[in-house]
Amino acid sequence: MKKTIAVLPGDGIGPEVTDAAVKVLQSIAMRYGHTFHLKHALIGGSAVDAHNNPLPDETIAACEASDAILLGAVGGSKWDQNPGHLRPEKGLLNIRKHFDLFANIRPVKAIPALLGSSPLKEEVAKEVDMVIVRELTSGLYFGEPKRRTEKAGVDTLVYTRDEIERIVDQAFEIARGRRGKVTSVDKANVLETSKLWREVVEERKAFYPDVEVEHMLVDSAAMKLITDPRAFDVMVTENMFGDILSDEASVITGSLGMLPSASVRSDGFGLYEPVHGSAPDIAGQNKANPSAAILSAAMMLRYSFGMHTEAAAIEEAVMSVLEDGYCTGDLSSAGKQVVSTERFVTKVIEELERE
Amino acid sequence: MKKTIAVLPGDGIGPEVTDAAVKVLQSIAMRYGHTFHLKHALIGGSAVDAHNNPLPDETIAACEASDAILLGAVGGSKWDQNPGHLRPEKGLLNIRKHFDLFANIRPVKAIPALLGSSPLKEEVAKEVDMVIVRELTSGLYFGEPKRRTEKAGVDTLVYTRDEIERIVDQAFEIARGRRGKVTSVDKANVLETSKLWREVVEERKAFYPDVEVEHMLVDSAAMKLITDPRAFDVMVTENMFGDILSDEASVITGSLGMLPSASVRSDGFGLYEPVHGSAPDIAGQNKANPSAAILSAAMMLRYSFGMHTEAAAIEEAVMSVLEDGYCTGDLSSAGKQVVSTERFVTKVIEELERE
Ligand SMILES: CC(C)[C@H](C(=O)O)[C@@H](O)C(=O)O
Ligand SMILES: CC(C)[C@H](C(=O)O)[C@@H](O)C(=O)O
Repeated sequence: MKKTIAVLPGDGIGPEVTDAAVKVLQSIAMRYGHTFHLKHALIGGSAVDAHNNPLPDETIAACEASDAILLGAVGGSKWDQNPGHLRPEKGLLNIRKHFDLFANIRPVKAIPALLGSSPLKEEVAKEVDMVIVRELTSGLYFGEPKRRTEKAGVDTLVYTRDEIERIVDQAFEIARGRRGKVTSVDKANVLETSKLWREVVEERKAFYPDVEVEHMLVDSAAMKLITDPRAFDVMVTENMFGDILSDEASVITGSLGMLPSASVRSDGFGLYEPVHGSAPDIAGQNKANPSAAILSAAMMLRYSFGMHTEAAAIEEAVMSVLEDGYCTGDLSSAGKQVVSTERFVTKVIEELERE
Repeated sequence: MKKTIAVLPGDGIGPEVTDAAVKVLQSIAMRYGHTFHLKHALIGGSAVDAHNNPLPDETIAACEASDAILLGAVGGSKWDQNPGHLRPEKGLLNIRKHFDLFANIRPVKAIPALLGSSPLKEEVAKEVDMVIVRELTSGLYFGEPKRRTEKAGVDTLVYTRDEIERIVDQAFEIARGRRGKVTSVDKANVLETSKLWREVVEERKAFYPDVEVEHMLVDSAAMKLITDPRAFDVMVTENMFGDILSDEASVITGSLGMLPSASVRSDGFGLYEPVHGSAPDIAGQNKANPSAAILSAAMMLRYSFGMHTEAAAIEEAVMSVLEDGYCTGDLSSAGKQVVSTERFVTKVIEELERE
């Protein structure tokens, strides 16, 4: 297959980890006979520096001419004092909205070799295997009116039935390919949007009789993610709750540096990026853990290109390297050998070539 | 001193645990020469059953004629299908708003004897000692417009400068009596209300030069509560974020059944209630952990009545009973003796009489 990929390295460790993912993609292309055209473009702080715009038109054009987007990370204290429209995150928010990437998909899976780094007791964190499906282009993030005066501020939480339907359907579809359970998270005892959300989930479940559905209040979900995370299979929720809960979930297994994410729309086009941030403190030091970026590339192969074998090969290669005792500094613990970003990637590619 | 206390037992285990707290208050009154007049009244599901109103006028009148409110818990599946205005929680929301109880204060402190019940590793949860200050009468909970049609739902997140100032000041005052650090949690990279929030915190900190202030995004805070909860002293945040984060925080030390809360306004009037819910599954079985209700009564003595010695005496008595190895079923673990609600209270009162 021939595919075009927009590569947006972004800021901080973004370029290093994206480079790593690209190397892995090149190895896959060789081995499986694909051609990946890469279009590099700027986003976030580096785009602000170059073009005074966190999502320049050139970048949008590069993405429009591509089949998927691979992103590193954006942000850094350098731009923290910038006005809103010149902040790196605005690039992220804009690209999500521009391409209507309404479904953010984040798998969280315990990796046995890394449970020692989890803040949770091993018996609580082990065997966690869930996917969070977060609505990404509506709700409090984008609702109007959104403004402030000297004396007050206002943001608006709006959801239409259609917006809820498509994200809920996405969650049902994902649950079908897994253990068949959806936990829909809302605050239906307080919010009107949540009442509508719950109603839509109840309607849609008729179309997925093979999937079990439960409703959970967002405060209870925040507790249960810690006390009993294994209870979840697929969690689906609105934008703001999803932001909080998916970050909470990202630390329970001790492997934040390993977590990929996908932000997709219905036709298969999507943006793939690590869950972790741009970590400016270790940028350029050949220390960053490239796993999340590499696993994001694997998600891209699976969701956007339908390359299931290739995706699985990457995932297995990364796990093998970890099981062999190699890791980057973020995961160091007794008995492990800490290696550089580059050496870790080389190991992953060696595994791929061996498989 | 003579004080009048409105006692609102509520639903589920509410009556049992409130009874326990009242017994402890009576023991304190005897020993320290106070008179506590009690006015019992209905709230929540039991009020819906009796008066078709989760917060009847009689209850409001009883509270208005009192110096503080002691509440058990509200809710239960029996009322889950009721329309919004006849749901138990509505009683809580209405009483908060009616009495302008804008500051919800929730201490979370690790209890060494209970760390075994924490889902977190002991080295992460031990020595946690923080207070969450949540704005309780504004934001998404009450903002207008708040409505839905067939096709869409809307809720409104509004904050005025005054609303933010008073809750932030409350947090600064509390921090002064503790380790002197305030973490203000917002989503200033996305929300206009959060930008205003951050601005107000920056302004108010000039009046508290002895207090250190940090700003944290809500998604980062959700992570840090798990990975490094000891880093927090006083956390202050808006209503919806506070709902989520305070419930998340309530489970990190393994002692949810021990946690009290206060919802106060500036003149010292307040409502005191356990953080845990109404637990209908164990209601009426003399099994519930009365500690959170008892410790809520202690908070009442301290915050609303200025009875610091009496409050400390209650807190020490509860800790002594736990250290002696007695606990209720929710905290059972090897080496502990599980006792009934009543027996636990008797033990606490014996301790009080010994001190
Ligand atoms: C950077 C920020 C705007 C963004 C969000 O809140 O969506 C981030 O936290 C995320 O989850 O991708
Ligand atoms: C019952 C519910 C309305 C309430 C809230 O969300 O405030 C509860 O969760 C709480 O935190 O006291």
